[in-house]
Amino acid sequence: MTRLVILGAGNVAQHLYKVLQATTTLNVVQVYNRSSKALSFFKEAKTTTDFKQLAEADVYIIAVADDAIASISNKLPFSNRLVVHTSGSAGMHVLNKKNRRGVLYPLQTFTKGTTVDFTTIPFCLEAKEKSDFALLKSITTAIGSTSYKISSEQRRALHVSAVFVNNFSNHMYRIAHEICEANNVPFEILKPLILETAKKIENVTPYMAQTGPAKRGDHKTIQAHLEKLDKDIHKEIYTLLTQSIAKTYGREKL
Amino acid sequence: MTRLVILGAGNVAQHLYKVLQATTTLNVVQVYNRSSKALSFFKEAKTTTDFKQLAEADVYIIAVADDAIASISNKLPFSNRLVVHTSGSAGMHVLNKKNRRGVLYPLQTFTKGTTVDFTTIPFCLEAKEKSDFALLKSITTAIGSTSYKISSEQRRALHVSAVFVNNFSNHMYRIAHEICEANNVPFEILKPLILETAKKIENVTPYMAQTGPAKRGDHKTIQAHLEKLDKDIHKEIYTLLTQSIAKTYGREKL
Repeated sequence: MTRLVILGAGNVAQHLYKVLQATTTLNVVQVYNRSSKALSFFKEAKTTTDFKQLAEADVYIIAVADDAIASISNKLPFSNRLVVHTSGSAGMHVLNKKNRRGVLYPLQTFTKGTTVDFTTIPFCLEAKEKSDFALLKSITTAIGSTSYKISSEQRRALHVSAVFVNNFSNHMYRIAHEICEANNVPFEILKPLILETAKKIENVTPYMAQTGPAKRGDHKTIQAHLEKLDKDIHKEIYTLLTQSIAKTYGREKL
Repeated sequence: MTRLVILGAGNVAQHLYKVLQATTTLNVVQVYNRSSKALSFFKEAKTTTDFKQLAEADVYIIAVADDAIASISNKLPFSNRLVVHTSGSAGMHVLNKKNRRGVLYPLQTFTKGTTVDFTTIPFCLEAKEKSDFALLKSITTAIGSTSYKISSEQRRALHVSAVFVNNFSNHMYRIAHEICEANNVPFEILKPLILETAKKIENVTPYMAQTGPAKRGDHKTIQAHLEKLDKDIHKEIYTLLTQSIAKTYGREKL
């Protein structure tokens, strides 16, 4: 049985706790958080708000906001144990080197209250020691997830990529929602297209999947769209992304 | 049996032909195209390249590039029949008014060679006459699609919205792909996140679904991301979309 301590009580901590605890080979022996109030989610777990009371474990998983990782790792009252964080953007080196360091980064968007299917979530793993890497890998295997060996530098690239595919795509949905509302059209109509757009790249590259007026160099439609947009920021975004797509396909400035 | 003639032989024409012909209540009696070569797809259909040879039908569906709709509708050698186009951006009025006019716009991205599940595709319908609207609706019902009554003005709003959710989202995927390649990270890792991002808005609005550094006002992460991006156009897009998200959530300029 691999013994785990989770430090943190937020979204990621909660989702991780649930899935780790549901396995037969992993045991979350304790959950730490600064404030006891946030620990109310972890009804069935042993919890503590005191670093001095931290239980002995094989892996300490720091699942907190990026800014707080270093300070928590500094406060750990032991050394030479495996301590990992779950952040996409923080380097492994932010962890205090008095312990063995690693990263266990689940690349997914977690929403409070919704169930997460971890078997579809890829984990990006990093560890100083080979045996520690193997241990982290065994954790992801136990919860049925795929894992990849990813350096801090690569992880940073993935994290900014994730902003594009997740945060920025969602903002495209948001803008469409605004346009629909302004024109009394149900946003509902666009949902199948949104899903199909995401599904399409399962089998073809985004480069191959691209369609639309910017790729075709269809000035007339682009002009009509710009006239249809009311907000300046929407026009600006439309123009910049149209230029970027045109450039991608070797078209002149549109 | 409703008799249909399809004018055009491209992507949309092919997908429509297949699904219309598969029903028990609709019959594609003929496919017209300017060149006979493009008609080779329609092996089991009666075809023609001559306007004078057009068969009698209840609906004539013009499924061609936007620029060609008017000219084809002008050349039809009959009047007072129901003629519709399938375009998202062309108004109903581009059709010659010697015939009864309408629009049958399937809001989806069609890829050559892939099968399309029409039961998930919403159709935007428009017609001058009530009885014609009912006929168009019966066509979408026959193929198992949902339909909406959408004016030309609303359809234009939907079309530009579709550019945001489809073309621009796909471009976000493309940029992420480029960043991954430049950093030797498999793009594969991002696919579950892409799918989850699209699925998330089935149940919550894009406004509620938004996450990330721009929404949080996390300057430090935004700065780190901008430093990680090599291409100027990627930096420009990152900056503009970050500003737009910040603005959406009432944050100061980031």
